[in-house]
Amino acid sequence: MAKFYSRQELNFQLFENLDCLQLTQIPYFADHSEETFKLILDSADQIARKKLYPLLTEMDRKEPTLEAGKIKIHPEMKAIIRQFGEDGWINATFSYAEAGQQLPWTIHLAAGFILQAANYSASVFPFLTTGAANLIRTFGSRALVEKFTPKMYSGEWQGTMALTEPDAGSSLSDLSTSAQPTDEEGVYLIKGQKIYISCGDHDAVDNVIHLMLARISGAPAGTKGISLFVVPQKRADSGESNDVLTEGIYHKMGYKGAPIAHLMIGSNKGCKGYLVGEPNLGLKYMFQMMNEARLGVGMNAVAIATAAYQASLTYAKERPQGRKIDEKDLSKPQVPIIAHADVKRMLLFQKSITEGSMALILYCTKLSDEISHELDEVIKAKQEALLDLLTPIAKSYPSEMGLQSTSAAVQILGGAGYTTDFPVEQYYREARIHPIHEGTTGIHGMDLLGRKVLIHDGLGWKMLNQEILKSISKAKLTVGCEALALIVESYLANANATANILLQKSKEGPAIFLADATLFLELCGLLAMGWMWLNQARSARERMARVESDQNFYLGKMETANYFMEYELVKIKSLAERLKSSNYPTIAMKEDWF
Amino acid sequence: MAKFYSRQELNFQLFENLDCLQLTQIPYFADHSEETFKLILDSADQIARKKLYPLLTEMDRKEPTLEAGKIKIHPEMKAIIRQFGEDGWINATFSYAEAGQQLPWTIHLAAGFILQAANYSASVFPFLTTGAANLIRTFGSRALVEKFTPKMYSGEWQGTMALTEPDAGSSLSDLSTSAQPTDEEGVYLIKGQKIYISCGDHDAVDNVIHLMLARISGAPAGTKGISLFVVPQKRADSGESNDVLTEGIYHKMGYKGAPIAHLMIGSNKGCKGYLVGEPNLGLKYMFQMMNEARLGVGMNAVAIATAAYQASLTYAKERPQGRKIDEKDLSKPQVPIIAHADVKRMLLFQKSITEGSMALILYCTKLSDEISHELDEVIKAKQEALLDLLTPIAKSYPSEMGLQSTSAAVQILGGAGYTTDFPVEQYYREARIHPIHEGTTGIHGMDLLGRKVLIHDGLGWKMLNQEILKSISKAKLTVGCEALALIVESYLANANATANILLQKSKEGPAIFLADATLFLELCGLLAMGWMWLNQARSARERMARVESDQNFYLGKMETANYFMEYELVKIKSLAERLKSSNYPTIAMKEDWF
Repeated sequence: MAKFYSRQELNFQLFENLDCLQLTQIPYFADHSEETFKLILDSADQIARKKLYPLLTEMDRKEPTLEAGKIKIHPEMKAIIRQFGEDGWINATFSYAEAGQQLPWTIHLAAGFILQAANYSASVFPFLTTGAANLIRTFGSRALVEKFTPKMYSGEWQGTMALTEPDAGSSLSDLSTSAQPTDEEGVYLIKGQKIYISCGDHDAVDNVIHLMLARISGAPAGTKGISLFVVPQKRADSGESNDVLTEGIYHKMGYKGAPIAHLMIGSNKGCKGYLVGEPNLGLKYMFQMMNEARLGVGMNAVAIATAAYQASLTYAKERPQGRKIDEKDLSKPQVPIIAHADVKRMLLFQKSITEGSMALILYCTKLSDEISHELDEVIKAKQEALLDLLTPIAKSYPSEMGLQSTSAAVQILGGAGYTTDFPVEQYYREARIHPIHEGTTGIHGMDLLGRKVLIHDGLGWKMLNQEILKSISKAKLTVGCEALALIVESYLANANATANILLQKSKEGPAIFLADATLFLELCGLLAMGWMWLNQARSARERMARVESDQNFYLGKMETANYFMEYELVKIKSLAERLKSSNYPTIAMKEDWF
Repeated sequence: MAKFYSRQELNFQLFENLDCLQLTQIPYFADHSEETFKLILDSADQIARKKLYPLLTEMDRKEPTLEAGKIKIHPEMKAIIRQFGEDGWINATFSYAEAGQQLPWTIHLAAGFILQAANYSASVFPFLTTGAANLIRTFGSRALVEKFTPKMYSGEWQGTMALTEPDAGSSLSDLSTSAQPTDEEGVYLIKGQKIYISCGDHDAVDNVIHLMLARISGAPAGTKGISLFVVPQKRADSGESNDVLTEGIYHKMGYKGAPIAHLMIGSNKGCKGYLVGEPNLGLKYMFQMMNEARLGVGMNAVAIATAAYQASLTYAKERPQGRKIDEKDLSKPQVPIIAHADVKRMLLFQKSITEGSMALILYCTKLSDEISHELDEVIKAKQEALLDLLTPIAKSYPSEMGLQSTSAAVQILGGAGYTTDFPVEQYYREARIHPIHEGTTGIHGMDLLGRKVLIHDGLGWKMLNQEILKSISKAKLTVGCEALALIVESYLANANATANILLQKSKEGPAIFLADATLFLELCGLLAMGWMWLNQARSARERMARVESDQNFYLGKMETANYFMEYELVKIKSLAERLKSSNYPTIAMKEDWF
């Protein structure tokens, strides 16, 4: 079977670079150990290899269909979803009291990465159910939890997040799905339309539980009047229709195996929704989960790009073509294309993007695991500020660069990469969704510069500086990492200078301040990657000094860190030059000049 | 019908920015005028709108199939190909003696752009036939011309370029298809395999004429032993099989309407090939045409990106979402997304890439038209050196940036852009071929830095400098263009300094010299675009001063030039910094460190 990820790399990330075992010192995770963590990874590896990867191509070629109002998906998905349930996969991070395993999210997502790398479409189903169940258990009443979550955990029911409407995509304040109170407390009549609902309907489960945003009659306009509801496709008790009808299915460029539905809700006035938590706090609840979903999307992007990287690496080692650049003797056999500098550049590019992004996402999930159990409010506030700042970066950099990375994989395969004989073209199509869903890159740029850099008197940005400076100090004391530390230090200074100029600009109003928010997000992505590669280089050096095995692996890490600083981090210079400019073509350009 | 290109823009490029009417002063083109040129464009526009665009989606969804050894394509293509023949489209650039129209290639390709923007797959068929016929008429005997070209011109027969073999893709020196002399002079028995042959077999024509590279028995190894043959699918006289069998069809990510074949040649020892020109000069002949094909691919890339740009521009003007950044009143209606700075940035990006690339390609085709009829050998040598230098740039920059440009179009449409309800996802898939075929970007990087910059004592590079300096001088004298001129001047100096450092490095051997050839290609692409945008800004300014109409159009040109300098040209700084470095991760990285 083709290699779609490297377990050695994943182990390095978790146990050497991140030191995830620190989490076991938190009482909630105390029963865990390196052994239990590795068992979870093994279990994910098994199902990924035996069930998911073999269906990768087939799920792409045989798309879900809508027949007589019901979406039909690949027939093998039913057993796979049930197995996720039976393995305890869906509620693994939840407490023992909820029949969970109290697994750190870090390990859950690292194991999820294996599933995603094997078959992104198939991995979407349990991921969404976990997110939806998590909203109910966190903000819902005990009655709602008991009514809905057990069959979600078992994989009998699907969970979804139902936000988008025809007239409200990025602009959530314009949501118009309505909720009319009924005589029954907490029960509302829901009416509206939702579009782009992932796994919004399919025949591998008995019911679909939508976590849906809607507006209670009389609620304030904008985001302050949005409430969260549990809206089942069928009534939980009777199994009768709850008037959530599948109006359409979207056909899309990639991850075709996961169905995306257009739903009509309450068009026959028969849709009951159950209020979660307080009225008008729906968006706040949803965002708490969406931050996790955003890191999840970052990991999806890493997973697809990793599978593409591994496919192109295998090809580059096997495919003979041409000779070394200083070889003139044509009677010599051709060399594998990995011998060519430009092919190595494209491999180093992919390695640097995928492994650097993985390090960043796992850094964030560990922070999240720590925050969930931190008792000291001051420490917690600082950690939260840092995580809030990093979330748009950890969602967007892997998503945007994941496209470039899978594109490099296609390029390495050349004409072969463009055909359906190899999986890289599928990865290229699948990767394209990530800069769009869970907030477009443009939205995250505004979130980063317009909110996360500013709030709490810039606490998040200060924390970022503090943590990067810690890494720089440690690296300066590590033989072989001094030069890398100085490079990151200089780019940190450049990033700070740029941020300060932008803050000055904020006095000229939001239009000028935020005109290039997307570019600032890109700059911060590069800075965060530089930081992560500095950490990885130090981890590799420390390990090399202690153990004699796997020297090639660690030498590869060191050289990839070097690559990143030389080829990628240097892009900060051009970005910073643009960001400091006071010439604004995107504001000056009039709509009718296009 | 959706707008897939702008005729106003194309007219600006040809008649205002390029001044293509200068070509009518060349005797060969003397019968032509603005009127005849515009008639050709009108004619292309008609067939594009009426025949090609309506099939765009359908040809993507209903792929060609291989049935009983024969490839079947969309049934409407037969009439379309014949119409191309009847309209004189296939041999339009050839002489009156050849029943051609003596049309400048510049106009032929500009009209071709309209077809490509409407439906890239459909545009491939006549484009290939023209290229193949051109090889026969330029290098073949009168007998070959008479035997094969008339039915190619009429669209009854398809032409192809048959280079690639299973073990020889980018490495043409390893071609192994063999040619055995027969008793008949100029006739050889051909045996071998060819892969990825575009339009290599299909049922819309009566015969397929392959221009095929093969090695005559006893020929030298490497590229010096390759000859060019006309290899028909069926014998031209009898219509019997010529033992060219279709072994397979490739399914691919995009431009699915054009079939790509795997051919077995002479497996029953019955394949006759007709030698074109002299033995062992095949690659030289082929390259003469491939340079044209490369500019053609650059134009294909512009065409697809242009169609995507227009689709996203239409969407951005129509789709309401969110409010202006300083608008707090949620009772106000939503604004079209073009009002958002980040959407305008993505539109300006696409406009700058597509229109700048178009200007560069047309500059090259005009140069080519002039070269073909230049009598002064000294001038001709200089023009050829410049065109040779620009060709890898004009192929690669539009191809590579075309991907980014179509990706920006998808991003503007958001979730809708990822679905098959809009054409941008198809454009995104189609655009991906261009950095691969007609020489990968990596190959063009080596060609540019390793050959084109060096040969004839650097004449091409000197000519580039001379021409850019001319543009700078003119722009400095044009009100409103002075600042842009100074910017391009400073980046030209940066590019020259970088090139000089690389030339110094060449003393350390080809591995170091060429390690970052692809990045140098990217840098030269940016420089060439900066130059083209300077020219366009000047043309726009001059026009604005003379005519009062279309002020918005010209203001848009000026602002896009400004955008390009601010956001894109600035990337030269980071690239130059990397190129000047003497730290070589792509050389240091060992294959088993990955």
